[in-house]
Amino acid sequence: MINVFINGYGTVGKRVADAVALQKDMRIIGVSKRTPDFDSEQAIKKGFDLYCVEGADVDSFKNKGLETKGYLKDIKDSVDVVIDGAPGKQGAKNMDLYKSLGLNAIFQGGEDASIGSSFNAHTNFSENVGQKYIRVVSCNTTGLARTLGCLNDVNVIKKVKAVMVRRAADPGDNKRGPINAIIPEVKVPSHHGPDLKTVLPVDIETIAVKVPTTLMHLHTIMVDLKKDIDITRDEIISLFDNRSRVILVGKEDGINSTADIMEYAKNLGRNRGDMYEINVWKDSINIKDGTLYYIQAVHQESDIVPENVDAVRAMFDLKGKDESIEITNKALGIL
Amino acid sequence: MINVFINGYGTVGKRVADAVALQKDMRIIGVSKRTPDFDSEQAIKKGFDLYCVEGADVDSFKNKGLETKGYLKDIKDSVDVVIDGAPGKQGAKNMDLYKSLGLNAIFQGGEDASIGSSFNAHTNFSENVGQKYIRVVSCNTTGLARTLGCLNDVNVIKKVKAVMVRRAADPGDNKRGPINAIIPEVKVPSHHGPDLKTVLPVDIETIAVKVPTTLMHLHTIMVDLKKDIDITRDEIISLFDNRSRVILVGKEDGINSTADIMEYAKNLGRNRGDMYEINVWKDSINIKDGTLYYIQAVHQESDIVPENVDAVRAMFDLKGKDESIEITNKALGIL
Repeated sequence: MINVFINGYGTVGKRVADAVALQKDMRIIGVSKRTPDFDSEQAIKKGFDLYCVEGADVDSFKNKGLETKGYLKDIKDSVDVVIDGAPGKQGAKNMDLYKSLGLNAIFQGGEDASIGSSFNAHTNFSENVGQKYIRVVSCNTTGLARTLGCLNDVNVIKKVKAVMVRRAADPGDNKRGPINAIIPEVKVPSHHGPDLKTVLPVDIETIAVKVPTTLMHLHTIMVDLKKDIDITRDEIISLFDNRSRVILVGKEDGINSTADIMEYAKNLGRNRGDMYEINVWKDSINIKDGTLYYIQAVHQESDIVPENVDAVRAMFDLKGKDESIEITNKALGIL
Repeated sequence: MINVFINGYGTVGKRVADAVALQKDMRIIGVSKRTPDFDSEQAIKKGFDLYCVEGADVDSFKNKGLETKGYLKDIKDSVDVVIDGAPGKQGAKNMDLYKSLGLNAIFQGGEDASIGSSFNAHTNFSENVGQKYIRVVSCNTTGLARTLGCLNDVNVIKKVKAVMVRRAADPGDNKRGPINAIIPEVKVPSHHGPDLKTVLPVDIETIAVKVPTTLMHLHTIMVDLKKDIDITRDEIISLFDNRSRVILVGKEDGINSTADIMEYAKNLGRNRGDMYEINVWKDSINIKDGTLYYIQAVHQESDIVPENVDAVRAMFDLKGKDESIEITNKALGIL
C-alpha cells in the first residue's frame, strides 16, 4: 500500500486525491492547503487529514474551526510519495523541501520538463518505472499524446501541425479575462510541441490562442502522413475507438460544442462532472491529399487525473503499463 | 459618375454606402431597408434616399415617420450598379430581380461563388474588369487573400494550412451564442480554402472553429515554403509592411488581443471604429524547418468595404488596379 500525500489540494490536487482514494494499492495519507477556503472544509468532510502547506498560517485555519495536523515534515516518515498540486512553477520551489525530506514526488505539467521524468501512461509508462521525480505532462500535452500516440503506434506520422484554442481560465478563476477577445500566443511555434516530445517522439509544431471560455481546450490537428502509408479514415476511427481515454463524439449524440461535452460528463454521473477522456469529433476526422485532419477537446482539470494515478504505479513498479491503465480506468469509470 | 444603389442597408451595406459616398467617381443614389429600424433612421439623417426592399411594408416605415421613395424598380433607370448587402444566400434570391431590371450587381461573400466573378482587389482585379455580376469574397477569404497574396507574388507558397478562429456573431447580433463554449466546424477542411482559390490560386486547406467573441476573427496560418526558396523572416515582414491593407502590430504598440485592435481603430478616428486592414502580429511571424507561421486578425464588418469600392471600378473599368486601390485607400484613410 503506497501512502500518497497531496501537497496543494486545489483544482488538480483534489481531483487526484479522490482518484487515489478509489485505488486498492494506494491511499491518501494527508492533503495540504495554504488557505482555509471551501476546498479545505471539503477535504475534512471527505475524511482526509488536512495539513498546512509550508509557510501557511495555522491560526487562520483554527479561526475557521478547521483542524489541521501540522506540516508535511511532521509525517514525512509515513509518506511514500508527494503529489504536488501547486500552481505552475511553484512545484519547482517545493522541490527543495521534498529533497530535504528525502521524499519522492510527482509534479504537474506547469513545471519545466527538467524537474523530473515526463510521463504519459500510454506513450512512455516504462521509461518512468523506478523514477524518484516524475512530471505528469500538462492537460494539452496529455491530449496530444493520447491521440497522436495511437497514430505513432502504427508509424504513420511524418509531421504534425496543431493549433491549440485554449480556454482562458479555469471555471472558478472568474477574475481573469478576456471576456470578449481572442489573444494569440505570439511565440510561434508555442511550447506545446516541444513539451509533447518529452513523452512522444514525433515531429510537431504548435500555435496557441486564448479565447473567452472556461470549459475546455480545443485542438485542431493536422498530421502529414508518411508518403508510403496507405491508411484509411475508417482505420483512424478504429484506432481512436479502440484506445482507452479517447472517445469519439458527434452530431448523432448531440455533441456539437465543448459545452455539450461538459453536460455529457455530468450525465455520466462523473465526480465533479469531470471528463477524463479526450473527445474527438468523429465527423472532423478526414484524410485529404496525404494529410489527416481532426478536432479534439480536452478537459483541462481532469484529463491528467488518471495519469497521476498511473505515475504512482510506474514510480513504485506496482504494475505494468496495461494493467495499471486498466485498473485506473475501472476505478474511475473511464470509457 | 457611377450611380450606386445599396440593396440592404445593414452591417455591410451601411459601411459600403459611407465608403462610396467618399469617392469622387461614384455616388449613392439610394439605399434600401426591409424594416424601419435605427439604421433606416440614420440613412435618412445622412441624406441618403431611403427605399424599401422588395416585399417590405411601406406603411411600417410611414408609421415611424420615415419617408421612403419606393422600391428599386422605381429608379432602375438611374442605377448603374446595385451593391447587394443582404444576408448570406438572400443575394442569390435577389438575383432574379436584378436580372429582370437589367441591372449590374455586386454581391457579398455569403453567396455561392457561382453567382458571379469573385473579387479581391490585390489578387484578381483585372479578371473582374467589365463583369456584370461580381462577388466580393467574404471577410475571412479577403483576410487570407491579402497576406497570402503578398507571398504568392514572390512565388514561395507550396501548401497552406490555416485555422480560422471565428468570432461567433456580429457585435449587434446579441441573441446568438455561444457564451461559454468552443464550437468546431466539423466539416474539415472547411469551405474557406476552396473560397480563397476563387481569387488566389494557392494550395490551401482550412479548419474553422467558433468562439464566444464578437469583435474579430483570428487566423493562424502555416505556409509550407517551396523547397528551393531562400526567404528570411525579415523579408516576409517587409512584404507585409509594404502591402497596403495589411499592417503589422505587436506588443510594442500594446496590441496583444483582438480587443486591443478594435480600441486602436477607434483611436484612429475611424468611421464606426472600423479596421479595414488585416492586422498581422509581427512577433508571431516565424520560419521554422521550411514552414512560415503567422497570426492575423480580421475585422469581419469592414475589411471588405474597400474591396466593394474597387469592385465598382473594376466593373466599369474606371481605373486600373493600383490606381483604384490608391484612391480608395486615400478616401478611407487606410494605412
